[in-house]
Amino acid sequence: MVYILGLGHIGLPLAIWIALSGKKVFGIDKDRTKIEEITTGRINITEYYRGTPLKTLATELIRKELLIVNHRIERPGNEPTVFIVTVGMGQLREDAPHFSALLTLLEELCPLLMDEDLIIFRGTLSPGTCADILLPEIRKHKKRIYVAYCPETVQETSIFSELSTNPLILSAADEESYRQAEKFLQSLPFSSIHRAQSMEAAETAKVVQNIYRDVNIAFANEISRISSELKVTTNELLRLANTHPRVNILQPGPGVGGYCLPFALGFLLKSLPEGMKGDLPLSTTARNINRGKPHLVLGTVRKALKQDGKTIDTARIAIFGLAMKDYCSDTRHSPAVEIMNMLIENGAQVKAYDPLVPPEFPYRTPSFKESIKDADLLLITGKQPGIEIYIWEMLFNKECPPSIVDTRNIFPPSERTKLYRV
Amino acid sequence: MVYILGLGHIGLPLAIWIALSGKKVFGIDKDRTKIEEITTGRINITEYYRGTPLKTLATELIRKELLIVNHRIERPGNEPTVFIVTVGMGQLREDAPHFSALLTLLEELCPLLMDEDLIIFRGTLSPGTCADILLPEIRKHKKRIYVAYCPETVQETSIFSELSTNPLILSAADEESYRQAEKFLQSLPFSSIHRAQSMEAAETAKVVQNIYRDVNIAFANEISRISSELKVTTNELLRLANTHPRVNILQPGPGVGGYCLPFALGFLLKSLPEGMKGDLPLSTTARNINRGKPHLVLGTVRKALKQDGKTIDTARIAIFGLAMKDYCSDTRHSPAVEIMNMLIENGAQVKAYDPLVPPEFPYRTPSFKESIKDADLLLITGKQPGIEIYIWEMLFNKECPPSIVDTRNIFPPSERTKLYRV
Repeated sequence: MVYILGLGHIGLPLAIWIALSGKKVFGIDKDRTKIEEITTGRINITEYYRGTPLKTLATELIRKELLIVNHRIERPGNEPTVFIVTVGMGQLREDAPHFSALLTLLEELCPLLMDEDLIIFRGTLSPGTCADILLPEIRKHKKRIYVAYCPETVQETSIFSELSTNPLILSAADEESYRQAEKFLQSLPFSSIHRAQSMEAAETAKVVQNIYRDVNIAFANEISRISSELKVTTNELLRLANTHPRVNILQPGPGVGGYCLPFALGFLLKSLPEGMKGDLPLSTTARNINRGKPHLVLGTVRKALKQDGKTIDTARIAIFGLAMKDYCSDTRHSPAVEIMNMLIENGAQVKAYDPLVPPEFPYRTPSFKESIKDADLLLITGKQPGIEIYIWEMLFNKECPPSIVDTRNIFPPSERTKLYRV
Repeated sequence: MVYILGLGHIGLPLAIWIALSGKKVFGIDKDRTKIEEITTGRINITEYYRGTPLKTLATELIRKELLIVNHRIERPGNEPTVFIVTVGMGQLREDAPHFSALLTLLEELCPLLMDEDLIIFRGTLSPGTCADILLPEIRKHKKRIYVAYCPETVQETSIFSELSTNPLILSAADEESYRQAEKFLQSLPFSSIHRAQSMEAAETAKVVQNIYRDVNIAFANEISRISSELKVTTNELLRLANTHPRVNILQPGPGVGGYCLPFALGFLLKSLPEGMKGDLPLSTTARNINRGKPHLVLGTVRKALKQDGKTIDTARIAIFGLAMKDYCSDTRHSPAVEIMNMLIENGAQVKAYDPLVPPEFPYRTPSFKESIKDADLLLITGKQPGIEIYIWEMLFNKECPPSIVDTRNIFPPSERTKLYRV
């Protein structure tokens, strides 16, 4: 019996994955709408387990009573059990991570705990959070609770496979907590477990992993920006440079979205004393590049329209791709949505399309064809299923808007339209 | 028959590798001392081919007349042939790359060329160099010369294996040049050839590969700097973070040396118009971090001495590692040498040791033992063969200097000495 606390984009797949392994799972999320969506098979998370969509798996497992979802923790048995907390730190702004979601959760959880329960935190945490914030809160209740921290590293859109393949980093409050957590995790089909000497080491490693990605995406964005000046397309440059066995430049894009990468630097800075907050100039520059990318895209849209004698405030703009990353339905902190909102604020008429994002999403049109109808410009902000076919059909039917701004280097050179890359 | 022009750390191994494949090679370098060192088996380049050191291979191939070395180009035959130019751009400072070495070489080479000769440039070049500087120079001579650019990507210390395994990027002045160069390269045991659409694309890709490495080393240096504050050692942090399949943080060090990485950004900036030189903030910040690392190391040495009530101007300092990278004899632009020189300028008495660097190198002592005798501080700047044993013996014999400044995260925690990492 396992409790998963928090049924978001990570928590729900994890709950399903554990239930599929044969353990009975209680999935808890205080959002009643979400619980309703899960039970009725309407939850919109783009994950597949051996071809079956997550929402189908969820209803199937609920029917078999291997997965029980609820908006509050109910504890039927009298045995010590495992609570996996997938709730992370809250963020109002990139530089303002806070603990309120976790503390609210502990407020509900702690009175229900009994001796020898095991809590495993899996969210991304500012270094020091376990030892300084969470443990003292749990210890207040004077029960013998095992506490471990095992950061989640799976990537949205391939969670089910990465749950089985990504190595785990495990740390715990004490030796016995470590043993209990290790024993539990070894009972699931995870690949390998790497012990961290302290919870702070595990917290730092996780945050640094995210910053590393942020820095490398920023490098791709920076190189992409100057490549046109060097008379080489970004695609060609990356194809050639990445032939080197020690080089792996990532794909540039319209910015960096989601809950992980944009906030990682803020998490790290929060743990540093005031005098050291300037000691991360590279990571800070990277963050600024990625944070500024939507503005750069807006500038290119403006420039492209100007070439056609138009301005944003009267332009009709089609957007393809609203999700925060490719082949994904998650629009949280999506740079595409940020750019869309800036266009709207500047007076543009926007019709957006994303096949994975629900029809009720603001400004989403029912079809790609509808979005480009009479558009002055098409802005490509994401690679979603079918994008190649949409582009091909648009070119074939001669329905191309006069200008294309392509942030994903996916649109082919064509005489039918003016192509801008950014 | 192949000519290799320039017998440096890349050119000589390349000449030997081609000669080993059975082709007759003329190796040319205008430095007569180097030619003398090669013929007498005294050349100090740390490369091994299936266990045999480079200098032995060189004398063996010279004896068999498969390798002929000379300080000037002599052209005995009357057949078109291949000239591989390993000479690169010169650098007075990081931001001042120049073409003089290449132009001097072409001045000697061009009058000797005949129709259907093939020149393959292999050095790292500022984007545009082939088309704007080298080609016009060659074309002046009104001969039908095939010209190609194929940047070298092998890493010092593992050149022989990487010559066979690293993919090649190939570009040429025209279609026929490409065909000729491809045909020639395919006659050698290279792995794969990737065609670049233009010489500028190949030049840019090579420079960007180097900047990518520079950025990633800077990230390692940045993270290493703050890790002590986060109560996790750099080794532990990297070990944990690098368990992630999409994370590969490099090793921090005393700085970035050699002829490639420190100059790559300058090469790229040279090709950008004035108004775009500010568009590489990430790469520029990375360069500044790596360029500044020796000063940071100096600061840590100063701090460590101060803890012992000492100052640099009267301190005796042992340095282990002079080469520009691990397991290497190359001291060109070595950050270790830069730090050594700063220490000396500040009045320190320095005794350095590096088993791969020749005994006559300034301040190099005959043995490690000699270097640490009566030293106030040991500064570790490189991983060279035997370092673990030297450290172990030093600890075992209780000969540790009172303080250790370790830039390579190699010294174990010990009660025998005060350890500073940077």
